[in-house]
Amino acid sequence: MGRWEPNARGRLGRAAMELYVERGFDQTTIADIAERAGLTKRTFFRHYADKRDVLFAGADPLRDVVVRAITEAPPELAPFAAVSFGIEAGAELIQERPDDVRMRQAVIDAHPELQERELAKLAALVGDMAAALHGRGVGAWPARLAAEAGMAAFRVAFARWIAASAEGKLTQTVRESMTELTATVTGE
Amino acid sequence: MGRWEPNARGRLGRAAMELYVERGFDQTTIADIAERAGLTKRTFFRHYADKRDVLFAGADPLRDVVVRAITEAPPELAPFAAVSFGIEAGAELIQERPDDVRMRQAVIDAHPELQERELAKLAALVGDMAAALHGRGVGAWPARLAAEAGMAAFRVAFARWIAASAEGKLTQTVRESMTELTATVTGE
Repeated sequence: MGRWEPNARGRLGRAAMELYVERGFDQTTIADIAERAGLTKRTFFRHYADKRDVLFAGADPLRDVVVRAITEAPPELAPFAAVSFGIEAGAELIQERPDDVRMRQAVIDAHPELQERELAKLAALVGDMAAALHGRGVGAWPARLAAEAGMAAFRVAFARWIAASAEGKLTQTVRESMTELTATVTGE
Repeated sequence: MGRWEPNARGRLGRAAMELYVERGFDQTTIADIAERAGLTKRTFFRHYADKRDVLFAGADPLRDVVVRAITEAPPELAPFAAVSFGIEAGAELIQERPDDVRMRQAVIDAHPELQERELAKLAALVGDMAAALHGRGVGAWPARLAAEAGMAAFRVAFARWIAASAEGKLTQTVRESMTELTATVTGE
């Protein structure tokens, strides 16, 4: 197999996700993934560090999009509005590939260790969002609170969207969740 | 060593926590813990499943207190107020032993795997709080949202309290955090 297989990364990712769903994450080997993708193990390791990396490689681009949106949000936006702006940008990225996201979530939901890793990634994202807000001049604790509140709304929106088979726009569900969050904390 | 050592569980817990802080979690063995407590490994295993269990054994009583408080909160309370009621009950339990809580947090903060486990425990608590709200007649998604929002406020309050060396009342910090959450999501 040559070094420049067309879309090797995408093929490996899709093959891995299919196998994780069909056989389970633990029962899938990297050799299985490479074979399904028609590539070699060596090619796999050029694109991913390990089996888990296939599931979490999307976290960095997502973080970059969210953080950039918060940083570049209109300066007059209050902290929570800026966080919402960032989370909607992230939601837009997520909803581009609903099938992949749904498969990925099914794999994670079936595996406690992967769930723990996912929670850690989301917690790190809260930290990054808070840092981006802090960069806009928001105090450290208020920034943290706005970021945690935004993540609270996002978690529920994402769960609802997945429960609805990832149909429709996640951005819309996120906006509804933000509005409902405001209603619930004000006691309405 | 006899079966009925006085306060064996407490002595083992304290010995473990001291060693985790002094040497690190990975560098501490169960034999070390038993020796420090003046007890046997056998006694350790009568009280804890493993080294990690010492750190997370408090999660179940905490959950029970929080869930009971939500279930028994005045029926006229709106969902978020009921969650706040539960979280304040939990905060009261936590602040009873500030030194233990501070040591425990230092151990967890130094160890990514323990952090992931802690995040999983807190996520499970959100699920339990949502279920308790649902038991009060709140719809499943609004219950989830109120529980996530309460946990968002709690996380920040707890981090602030730990940053202040666990001095003062966590319940007070929690109440402030709840008020600030309301202010931030309404854009104030």
